[in-house]
Parts: sequence; C-alpha cells; structure tokens
Amino acid sequence: MKKIKIGILGYGNLGKGVELAVSRQEDMNLTGVYTRRNPRDIETIFSTTKVFSVNALRQKQDIDVLILCTGSATDLPVQTPEYAKMYHVVDSFDHHEQIPAHFKAVDEAAKAGAKLALISCGWDPGLFSLMRSLFAAIFPKENLYTFWGKGISQGHSDAIRRIKGVKDARQYTIPKESILKAVKVGASPSPSAIEMHQRECYVVPEEGADLDCIAREIKSMPDYFQGYDTNIYFISQEILQAEHCGFPHGGTVMLTGHTGQLQNELEKVIFQLELDSNPNFTAHVLVAYARAVYHMAEKAEVGCRTVLDIPVSALCQSMFGQI
Amino acid sequence: MKKIKIGILGYGNLGKGVELAVSRQEDMNLTGVYTRRNPRDIETIFSTTKVFSVNALRQKQDIDVLILCTGSATDLPVQTPEYAKMYHVVDSFDHHEQIPAHFKAVDEAAKAGAKLALISCGWDPGLFSLMRSLFAAIFPKENLYTFWGKGISQGHSDAIRRIKGVKDARQYTIPKESILKAVKVGASPSPSAIEMHQRECYVVPEEGADLDCIAREIKSMPDYFQGYDTNIYFISQEILQAEHCGFPHGGTVMLTGHTGQLQNELEKVIFQLELDSNPNFTAHVLVAYARAVYHMAEKAEVGCRTVLDIPVSALCQSMFGQI
Repeated sequence: MKKIKIGILGYGNLGKGVELAVSRQEDMNLTGVYTRRNPRDIETIFSTTKVFSVNALRQKQDIDVLILCTGSATDLPVQTPEYAKMYHVVDSFDHHEQIPAHFKAVDEAAKAGAKLALISCGWDPGLFSLMRSLFAAIFPKENLYTFWGKGISQGHSDAIRRIKGVKDARQYTIPKESILKAVKVGASPSPSAIEMHQRECYVVPEEGADLDCIAREIKSMPDYFQGYDTNIYFISQEILQAEHCGFPHGGTVMLTGHTGQLQNELEKVIFQLELDSNPNFTAHVLVAYARAVYHMAEKAEVGCRTVLDIPVSALCQSMFGQI
Repeated sequence: MKKIKIGILGYGNLGKGVELAVSRQEDMNLTGVYTRRNPRDIETIFSTTKVFSVNALRQKQDIDVLILCTGSATDLPVQTPEYAKMYHVVDSFDHHEQIPAHFKAVDEAAKAGAKLALISCGWDPGLFSLMRSLFAAIFPKENLYTFWGKGISQGHSDAIRRIKGVKDARQYTIPKESILKAVKVGASPSPSAIEMHQRECYVVPEEGADLDCIAREIKSMPDYFQGYDTNIYFISQEILQAEHCGFPHGGTVMLTGHTGQLQNELEKVIFQLELDSNPNFTAHVLVAYARAVYHMAEKAEVGCRTVLDIPVSALCQSMFGQI
C-alpha cells in the first residue's frame, strides 16, 4: 500500500499532536516537521522525526498533504494561501467571522496551483460546524445550542496574564448547569452565550499585587468577562502547575426538534466532546481530514473546502483493516 | 424559488411522518402519497394531501424525489430497484447484513435509469452509521460503542405478540447503566450487544393464559431474548394503551480514544438521540437527505449512495433562510 506523506508546519502543542496522531495511522508516513525556529533547537517526540527549516517548503517537498499547525491570528491568513499554491493543505483557522475571507484567499491560491485545501478543520470550527449544519438540515428553524466546556480557554487565559500584577493564569469556560437542564427538558430557552456559560479563573498573582484590583480588572474586561458569571481564585504557581497544567476542553451541540401533528413530541439530537487534551484531539481530526483531502485530490478535486464539503466516505478511504 | 417535489410511497407511521416533515420545509412541496390500498380508504393528516394508487407511479409522476416508506423485509428489496429506474429515490432499508446486496441491486437500477438513489437512510442505519464511521476515522482501532434505547423495539414487540396466549405487547430495549458508566470513565470494556442491553417486556395476556409459560417462552427465544437480562410485566390492555402507546427510541454512539505520548489522555466523542417518536424523527432525516439527493442529482450524479457519501453541504443547499 502506498502511504500518504504528511508534512507538519509549526511545532507547538498542535504540531506535536499531529506528530503523535500520524504515528498511529497505518496508511501514513511523516515526511517531517517544518519550523521557523532553528531546526536544531527542536526536540521532537520521536527521535526518527526529521526537522527542516520552513524555507525548505519553497522547494517542492515529498509531501502529499501539508498540515498547518500555526496560529490563526497572523500566521494562517498568510501561510495557508501561500502553501496552497504548492501543496494540498489542511489548516485549523478558527477566527469564525473571518472564515469567508480566508476561504476566498485559499480557494484562489489552491486553484492557481491545482491543489486541494481544507480550512477551519478541528472541532469548533470543524466537527461542531458539521453537527450544527447536519442538525439544522434535519430540523430547520428549531432550537440549536452550542455549549463550550468545561475547558481551558487559551484566549481568556492570555487576557488575564496580560493584567498588571498577574504572573500566570488559567481560565475555564463552563456551561451553566441550569441552562443545560432547561434545554434538555425541551424548555426551548433563548439564552445568549453570556447566559449559557460561566468563567472560572485561576490566577497566580505577583508578590505584593493588589488582588482586589486584579479581580475588578478581570470582571470588567469587555468581550472576555464583562457580563459573565465569573469566579476568581488566587492560587500559587505550584498549585497551578499541579492541578491546571493540561488542556482539557469539550462542549455540546444540542438540537431540540418538535414533531407530531401538534408539535408536542420532542426529538433531542446531541453531539458531545469531553477531551483531556484539546490539541491532541484536534490533531487527530486534522489527520483524519488530511486523509480525505489526499483521496479527493487523487480524483483531481481542486480549490478550497470546509468539513461540510467532505463526505465521511472520503475520511474512511484506505482505512480498511484499521477500523 | 423552485420547490422540490416529493412523493411518498407507503402510508404507515413513517409515511405520515414524512407528510408532516415535508409540510415544515420551505423549499418542498408534496406531490402526493402512493399506496397499495384503495386511495379512498386513506385518511391523510392534511386534507390537501393527494392520494394515488401505487400503479400511478408506472406513468412518470411529477416527482423530484420519491421517499419509500414501506417495509425492509419484503417491500424495499423489490420496490427500491424498481422505482430507482424512474425516480430519484430515498429508502430506509434497515436489514444491516443485506445492505451490500441491496446497494448493488439499487445501483444497477439507478444507473440504468440515470437516477440517483440513497438507501438505508434514517438513524440506524443512517446517522449512527455516519457517526461510527466519522469517529472511527478520527480514532482508528479505538473503542467504539453503540447503545440502543431506551426505546420500543418493533421487531421484539412483534415476536412477543406471536406467542400463544399473548394479546398485545411492547418491548423496550434499554442500555445497561453499568456498562454505560464503565465506557464513560474510559474503562474500555468489550461487552457483547447482549451484555450492553436489557429488555423490558409489557405483555397483555389473553384471558386465562398461562403466564409462567409465556414468560418462559419469551426468555428462551433465541436471537431475541435468550441470554439477555429480560424483565416481563403483565399488564392490562388499558394500561398498555395509556402508558406504552408511543414510539420512543434513541441511543448513543460513543468513542473513547486515547492520546498523548503515553496514551493516557482520554478523548470522548458522543452522539446521542432521545426521541419521543422514532418514525417522526426518521421521517425528518429522510426528508433532509431527499433534499441532498435532489441537489446532487441536479449535478448529474447517478447510481446508489449511502449517507456516508453525502456531504453535509448538500443537505443544507436551498435551506438558506430556513436555518
């Protein structure tokens, strides 16, 4: 069997996750990790993994699908179109409101290079997008809810760390139990994202920092915490390292549809993730979809796609014996 | 907007569900119900619904997609290939082990007529098949479980009703709480379907029937009850009508995957259905997929498909404004 050759661009938590995930696929080989750092400074999980400079990608590498594991803020908007001209690519671009613009740029680049690209893969956007669309197709105009958590929100943790007097911090997003219950019994509430979630902040203060001041600043931060039910716990660096060092996350997409002549029958459709490791799970999703991109590209498909465009049959191709 | 014209073949619980579901779609019209009974004997939910003899289908009707709502045992193996020659069709053929043979027969017929057919749609087979394949693609070789219920099993209820001395019966399939719990904590058990489920039977005996004899016969029925943890309750017809008259069902597809260098991180992926009405929910799934079949057929796709071949984007087409 010809194996699918994968390249990894960027070697943070997600890149490491992809290295691990590829090692578990019988139909894939890892060509190497491509980094903007000095390749000699990179210590990979497997000693057999090759590390190259990102510049090597400019000369056509022996890669079937390049998985981009860099950031959505400034990296992917530039890199995905750039590399989609030369390689079939998969990225996890997650700035929801900018996805249409990103799609357009990647689509043009991929078509120019006769390559296939998949953007915004992962779980949200990604699997959750897939479920929301599937559920909405089955029950148009019904109540569709997305709860995030319990899990670490990287963006919110970063926002707290930027506050003066804060040494380190982790923020958990947690679905509100009362809303979750109301949805489950079919009460069809219409809560805002603010009402659906609470935020728990574990904060390591600098020595002598004004804790009240930090707490006030967190709770009043617009977009991030203002309006939310927010709890703040000041802890030591040791406890943060011991108890809050992982990247757990997850969430629930739930639809409550009504059927019957009187619309009095309730049909609940639920998709749920409970993840010990957000980046490692996301990596497995990227790798599964890289397989689909490879097989669809073999059929001469070109341009940009999202997970909505990928039939599950393409995800399973060349997996027979693995499932 | 041009509306999608739907035909319904067969007017039992599923056919009625499709009639209701189509009425809730902005982009669909119902051409009519086609029946083997005398059309005059059929009382439809909506007085505006037209009823025709099944024979009318032999002359090309004004139908974009024909949804077959007849039985898997003897109807669909004959009818789906027959009508796939003339119409784009969707069926809910659910004899799992016979799906490959059914697929082949329908594929040949659809190709001969240059039509598009979707078989084995619904929730199992159907959405559950989609989830099992998606989950297995993300985590090959990991633990994948399907729990059915709590819900009414039509086949098991029928089997009990055939026993001498039984007037009426309903059988609930219920996931075993202990196994469900073990799976959820990542214990990775390997239970059989028998160990994963228990069966509750509500039986209305004929007057003077030997209850012990009925109970023994139920519990020893091979394939259906033998080996299962089975509880039997004898009740009156009135209580059966009052408390067990609906068609609730549901189930859970769950994957527990492992990530991390030491494979010690647990990633749980769960898809769950809790349905007040099995046939009405199934009808909504069939109607959503009929939309996809219509749009894919417009692009000149022909032959047989399963839900694994349908991208979610095809399900959502022409729904904008409805979601």
